[in-house]
Amino acid sequence: MSNKNLTISFLGIGLMGLPMCTNIAKAGFAVKAFNRNIEKLNALKEFGVNTCNTLQEAVSETDIIITMLSDDEAVLDVLNQIIKLDYKKNSIFIDMSSIKFSTAKKIHDITKQNNLRYVDAPVSGGPEGAKSASLAIMAGGEQLDFDDCHDVLKTMGNPTLVGPSGSGQVAKLCNQIIVGVTIGAVAEAIILCEATGADPTKFIQAVAGGFADSKILQNHGNRMVAKDFAPRGKTHTHLKDMNNIIECAKDYQTELPISNLIQKMYQSLVNAGLGDNDHSSLYKEILKLNKRGI
Amino acid sequence: MSNKNLTISFLGIGLMGLPMCTNIAKAGFAVKAFNRNIEKLNALKEFGVNTCNTLQEAVSETDIIITMLSDDEAVLDVLNQIIKLDYKKNSIFIDMSSIKFSTAKKIHDITKQNNLRYVDAPVSGGPEGAKSASLAIMAGGEQLDFDDCHDVLKTMGNPTLVGPSGSGQVAKLCNQIIVGVTIGAVAEAIILCEATGADPTKFIQAVAGGFADSKILQNHGNRMVAKDFAPRGKTHTHLKDMNNIIECAKDYQTELPISNLIQKMYQSLVNAGLGDNDHSSLYKEILKLNKRGI
Repeated sequence: MSNKNLTISFLGIGLMGLPMCTNIAKAGFAVKAFNRNIEKLNALKEFGVNTCNTLQEAVSETDIIITMLSDDEAVLDVLNQIIKLDYKKNSIFIDMSSIKFSTAKKIHDITKQNNLRYVDAPVSGGPEGAKSASLAIMAGGEQLDFDDCHDVLKTMGNPTLVGPSGSGQVAKLCNQIIVGVTIGAVAEAIILCEATGADPTKFIQAVAGGFADSKILQNHGNRMVAKDFAPRGKTHTHLKDMNNIIECAKDYQTELPISNLIQKMYQSLVNAGLGDNDHSSLYKEILKLNKRGI
Repeated sequence: MSNKNLTISFLGIGLMGLPMCTNIAKAGFAVKAFNRNIEKLNALKEFGVNTCNTLQEAVSETDIIITMLSDDEAVLDVLNQIIKLDYKKNSIFIDMSSIKFSTAKKIHDITKQNNLRYVDAPVSGGPEGAKSASLAIMAGGEQLDFDDCHDVLKTMGNPTLVGPSGSGQVAKLCNQIIVGVTIGAVAEAIILCEATGADPTKFIQAVAGGFADSKILQNHGNRMVAKDFAPRGKTHTHLKDMNNIIECAKDYQTELPISNLIQKMYQSLVNAGLGDNDHSSLYKEILKLNKRGI
């Protein structure tokens, strides 16, 4: 495919989809956008995006169809509608939503039976990363299909092909293992500082640049010290991720003991009504185990 | 104290002590060095270090006495010898060894009773960090004492006062919590990639720069992918750290569930005869739980 001539359908204009779609249009690609709530499309008009009133209008005659939707059901629902509509055969269906590996495999089968090429490409980096076009984009699929949509993905961040179909979703799960477990590690370090009378803020400064340092230490760690649990990433969302991780691992006869423990801790927080807290609230869960509050 | 006129005793010329002592001498301080095995002192002569045949010779008339020794017993033993010798009253005893918080508190009492000021200042960064004078130096003690030895510590890396006496050792333990747990997180992510057919090397590349990224992911993660468990940090050393973490937490009525789990995993590796493997061998432990070998 020759690049800037590609036409794109973008489906799902939410907190992430809006800046992602904007960045594709800004790069000069012809984009048609659709959203269930049509009013959200208005913000795209100034970037020359063709906003559509129907899904049919959005997917007809485009080379790449991108979905950025809330969950597995939404992606399956939209895909099952598309295959009954008029769309260009052999076009690429890129699902950038974060969904289960098992759902990605279902989508693989549906697209194959309906003359669509499929790339799964979930992202990490949040709305800030979406705005600044610096998302980590973890892709799964055929090398040729990845190559054919690389320039479009590149407008939203840094795409890497991690393996065969579904591997993007696996990589996203693995990303969430590391984020969740590292939050737990930082929480225990800060709690030990506080228990013994060391200054946790000075601790974070002292180890900066060393092997214990990370964005999680500098960001989530300082939130714990400040007792600031306003949500950037929500606890119930991370619980959903941990559930998907354990389910995916089980499908491959694999047990992950540390992830299991973190899943139980997030479940306990959600059970206690703290699901809307920031995912750094593992700190609260460990204090709760120690019969301390904050 | 006026700075470059300070005289330093450096006790313990091993893998870490040798480059640390060298860096102090290179910065222009007058240094006297002593080691139980006297032959190891020879390497210091070219940097103008005054190598001593006895502990008495090394500690007489110096402003700062630094110890960099293998364990709690060695530090207590040397300190108990020093207090029977002739040394300058009100000089600063800096212990840079990694020892227990409870031992640091004993040393605090001994130094106080013997006209010595005490700063605990363990380090992170290994022999490479020692050579390049980029160690993270985590200090505990009085602000005035820290200020008085800051310029000397600075020649070896980046010193930060984390809190009152013993807080340096607490910070080192907290550093090891984060390192150990993050190794476990990375191991589970790589095992899930391998189980599902995603490429773990590509995964590590894909998430670089995001919230899951860290030196542990880039270093220990790639060692796991390569099945390279040649020791940089040893499993039995990290087990000792985890034991000290749990003991210290218990002394403050604190339970750390994730650290407990990692301690059990390191203990199981040591029980299986893998204590001399790199501490990234948590990867092997998780495979073992899944009845897989490598």
